[in-house]
Amino acid sequence: MNFDKKLETKVNEVERIIGKYLPEEKGYQKTVIQAMNYSILAGGKRLRPMLMQETYRMFRGGGEMVEPFMAAIEMVHTYSLVHDDLPCMDNDEYRRGRKTTHVVYGEGMAVLAGDGLLNFAFETAMKAFSFAEEKEEFARIAHALSVFAAKAGIYGMIGGQTADIEAEDMESGMTKEQLLFIHEHKTAALIQSAMMTGAILAGAAEEEIAKIEKSAYNIGIAFQIQDDILDVTGSLKTLGKQAGSDEKNKKTTYVTIKGMEQAVKDVESLSEEAVEILSSFKERNEFLEDLVKRLITREK
Amino acid sequence: MNFDKKLETKVNEVERIIGKYLPEEKGYQKTVIQAMNYSILAGGKRLRPMLMQETYRMFRGGGEMVEPFMAAIEMVHTYSLVHDDLPCMDNDEYRRGRKTTHVVYGEGMAVLAGDGLLNFAFETAMKAFSFAEEKEEFARIAHALSVFAAKAGIYGMIGGQTADIEAEDMESGMTKEQLLFIHEHKTAALIQSAMMTGAILAGAAEEEIAKIEKSAYNIGIAFQIQDDILDVTGSLKTLGKQAGSDEKNKKTTYVTIKGMEQAVKDVESLSEEAVEILSSFKERNEFLEDLVKRLITREK
Repeated sequence: MNFDKKLETKVNEVERIIGKYLPEEKGYQKTVIQAMNYSILAGGKRLRPMLMQETYRMFRGGGEMVEPFMAAIEMVHTYSLVHDDLPCMDNDEYRRGRKTTHVVYGEGMAVLAGDGLLNFAFETAMKAFSFAEEKEEFARIAHALSVFAAKAGIYGMIGGQTADIEAEDMESGMTKEQLLFIHEHKTAALIQSAMMTGAILAGAAEEEIAKIEKSAYNIGIAFQIQDDILDVTGSLKTLGKQAGSDEKNKKTTYVTIKGMEQAVKDVESLSEEAVEILSSFKERNEFLEDLVKRLITREK
Repeated sequence: MNFDKKLETKVNEVERIIGKYLPEEKGYQKTVIQAMNYSILAGGKRLRPMLMQETYRMFRGGGEMVEPFMAAIEMVHTYSLVHDDLPCMDNDEYRRGRKTTHVVYGEGMAVLAGDGLLNFAFETAMKAFSFAEEKEEFARIAHALSVFAAKAGIYGMIGGQTADIEAEDMESGMTKEQLLFIHEHKTAALIQSAMMTGAILAGAAEEEIAKIEKSAYNIGIAFQIQDDILDVTGSLKTLGKQAGSDEKNKKTTYVTIKGMEQAVKDVESLSEEAVEILSSFKERNEFLEDLVKRLITREK
């Protein structure tokens, strides 16, 4: 089976798992639940839950303990998009070809839907405790939860959002340190969360978890630099958004700071190191390695 | 020592504990942290952490395990106010005599500060695991966390907010069921969360936790009916907001549905039952009982 076929099967599997954990649209709070599900079901690559599941599998995790966390990380990712699209943030009316949540449900309901998704992400992840019997399993889930929470919060994704919003208001442009902070926190943090919680739940050792954190960091940064590169080189057709939009906005990007040639080289070396780390473990997961390669060399 | 003096001492104790868990204002994400701390330090009665701590004490809970949860519930309460005050929600410019978060930090940052507080609430509550040694303690904290999350989310506070927003848009007014749903979820749920997590962390038995849930339900509903009553009877001076504002907005309240006389009676009987439940436990906490009486018979 070729990679694309495998990927399609995996996406379906991940979506089935996410679907199991979505709230039912009923009761006096029905509207907020509809808005939440509308946002989640808008599609997307389901990259984070997939990376989590494949990392879990690489470390020989078994059973369903990882499933609530898979649904939870997609909820966190989705809430961040719903709030990001709000008029007081990026003010986007369309995402993936569909109207954004606040356009369909109103701004107030979109704020609540984002809050609802973030809160429900934690409620969902905590369902993993129902699979715990031994003390060691409780401790493992507690550890995974705390990494999951930290990478989503002010020392993770929200921290990156904050720096990003502030950078937009700066007239002098960003420094390289600031840009890396944003890429690391806004993008890499949730990739780290996905892969680290997968590893932790599967019972990986401390040094293995540290290696996964490093590999996921590389993947996240490379992914984001590739985004900056595609903004310059991509065409309107393959990218689905107007290429060159960063340049028009006079946005500081990795490409404007380092130049195109260096940016391409850095994506390659970050990516190579990420895959090297993954292939260094006793048991390997070829699909995971292929997925990482594909992610970073993607052309759209 | 009279009750007011005791209360003052307790508020100080609670504020010291909350202060220990606030994030430091530094790094590229400094602004969002400042906005979070600005919101939390705006004051307030610190009612929820106090109810939690006193319930914990009533069930003979010892040590610091409850403290992260105390800070966490105040963060949840505060984030809900920050998002509630947004222009797309209630559009309030002042709260407790200070400018609201979005007025000071801008709307985008206020959305992020609310998100940051909700996420940090979970990060903080999870710190309780650092006090766990035995499996039973892990299980107890996991149980407390899941109640804490459920009462804040779409089946708790956010559910109440949703119904409240929708009711405002309805021309025909609310039914009694709808109004009770809002009071139960928007107000009582966090009171239940406070008292139930206090009981759970202290090791209370299932039937004791169920009693606490019922007592806290009564307290929350009575508190909210008293609010509706004060809106009619209170003066501008003692209430700090224009009395009678509900009537002017043609808002459906408990008083408009049941009449003033019945509303006063219901507050009394709900309150009596709440205190009766609290006084039925083997060990009693007189301060907690006094606090509940005071809350419900307050005149401002």
